[in-house]
Amino acid sequence: MRALELQDSDLTFRSDYSEPVPSNDEVNVRILKAGICETDLQLVRGYMGFRGIPGHEFVGIPVSGRFEGCRVVGEINCPCGECTTCKAGRPRHCPHRSVVGILNRNGAFADLLSIPEKCLHPVPDHVPNEFAVFVEPVAAACRIIEQQLVRPNDSVLILGAGRLGNLCAQVLKPKCGELLVVGKHAWKLSRIAECEIESEELQSFVPQAKWDIVVDCTGSPSGLETALHSVRACGTIVLKTTIASEQSLHMAPVVIDETRIVGSRCGPFEPAMKLISEGRLQLAPMISATYDIEAAVEAFQVSSRSDVLKVQLNLRAGE
Amino acid sequence: MRALELQDSDLTFRSDYSEPVPSNDEVNVRILKAGICETDLQLVRGYMGFRGIPGHEFVGIPVSGRFEGCRVVGEINCPCGECTTCKAGRPRHCPHRSVVGILNRNGAFADLLSIPEKCLHPVPDHVPNEFAVFVEPVAAACRIIEQQLVRPNDSVLILGAGRLGNLCAQVLKPKCGELLVVGKHAWKLSRIAECEIESEELQSFVPQAKWDIVVDCTGSPSGLETALHSVRACGTIVLKTTIASEQSLHMAPVVIDETRIVGSRCGPFEPAMKLISEGRLQLAPMISATYDIEAAVEAFQVSSRSDVLKVQLNLRAGE
Repeated sequence: MRALELQDSDLTFRSDYSEPVPSNDEVNVRILKAGICETDLQLVRGYMGFRGIPGHEFVGIPVSGRFEGCRVVGEINCPCGECTTCKAGRPRHCPHRSVVGILNRNGAFADLLSIPEKCLHPVPDHVPNEFAVFVEPVAAACRIIEQQLVRPNDSVLILGAGRLGNLCAQVLKPKCGELLVVGKHAWKLSRIAECEIESEELQSFVPQAKWDIVVDCTGSPSGLETALHSVRACGTIVLKTTIASEQSLHMAPVVIDETRIVGSRCGPFEPAMKLISEGRLQLAPMISATYDIEAAVEAFQVSSRSDVLKVQLNLRAGE
Repeated sequence: MRALELQDSDLTFRSDYSEPVPSNDEVNVRILKAGICETDLQLVRGYMGFRGIPGHEFVGIPVSGRFEGCRVVGEINCPCGECTTCKAGRPRHCPHRSVVGILNRNGAFADLLSIPEKCLHPVPDHVPNEFAVFVEPVAAACRIIEQQLVRPNDSVLILGAGRLGNLCAQVLKPKCGELLVVGKHAWKLSRIAECEIESEELQSFVPQAKWDIVVDCTGSPSGLETALHSVRACGTIVLKTTIASEQSLHMAPVVIDETRIVGSRCGPFEPAMKLISEGRLQLAPMISATYDIEAAVEAFQVSSRSDVLKVQLNLRAGE
């Protein structure tokens, strides 16, 4: 089958990759379309030491099982279901989990993906493929709501106007009070403004310790530093993006100001699917380019440009 | 008056310090007894750049006003009462505040202390001075309860068996499930064991990511690192002690494991006074030594020893 392979920071398109053989609880999903995410770009830089097929945002059609012939999207954490963590209701944190295209499991930049059937969610007929691919990253934004970190009148500052910053802003907009997105790139900020969300360039932004919630979607070590200068006493910093490197921090202000710093990763698919199905998010302006899988290496390069948001990969012609 | 003065990391006992002149909302309190705390030791090392009279754990008798002649203890944060933060119900975080013996205000290691009358709380007659001095640090431990960070069945790991670690353990014991205190010094751990709280030496402690709550009372940069290795996914790390220095941290695990890191500082006096008044805490074994104010410099030296917990200073003979 066709697949994009990552080995030692080298991406290679291959047309001769072996088809996966699903185990008992798995099914093979024929991928229609997949999305490139910041984590994929970081995997290429060595994050998680991943080798194999990346890709964890996808829509496809199972070739067998309960959802055979129906379009599905898939949760990326594949838990054991048996351990203390799973039984405590935190399967996304199962210490024995594999993660689609990120940890000990091949991903969706290929014709076929083997995935546990329990991870799959059917896609309503009227949702086009290019929007269905957004369910996974929108779920990550919905995680902030699920964690009950934002109250209706809270002022929210989002640092970073990229893919995740944009989706977090759109998801949080109806759930909070004042909302501001601060980013580096004028083009990305203009996508925020189109959603009728206030935005400001980082160069002119003067941090004031006044925000109830600061969401760090920068993917940069400087994000947390800016967040610490922007959050009010007893306020909350939500860390959405992972930084592979160590960073130097002064923790004394966290104690003195009783700041709350909370990590936030994958989220619930149901509310994400509902937002997309009901057309509540502006996703079309976020799709900057679509490439066939054969041009995936070029697609990755384009994906890191500052005037680009989502780049998608087509696995089936005409999808 | 007699006072202990801190200037450029030098502590000096003086018998000729000018008596403070209270402003409109303040009263002068004649100090009976005061306690030396870890923050005091850090002030000597340059923390906060404080100059003047340190000391923020005290019991005394106001020489005028509503509480004239009654024993009182005092909250250490003196807020403006007018700003947004004060009006939002977070006066301990007032950006215009002074803090007794820590920030822009002289402290209690002196015969007289000027303090806003609204900071004072009367002490029940049956509570002896040496226990009343503990209200402030016990309130800091009660802050963890006030922040609603611990649920009844949560497993709690406390790192550090010193003054604050000991009090946090005693305050949290009836409020949580499994409780373990890990510390460096055998003598301090034996004080924990006397309270019928499980304890373990750091050398033999193997961190496992299983604890619902980890409270860092180490006062050491390594505390947070150990806490990150000990907290379960979606668990909470409570930072109780301030580290003056920067520290290098890997934040990716905080995101991946959705850890919550919360600063926790000063707390409510009412529940602290109630615990002490009802005799629910074992405070006598924590008092390692008492010195007259004239020997305060020696008292500070003793206070940093590993076989010492609380050192108190007498301001009135026989108190």
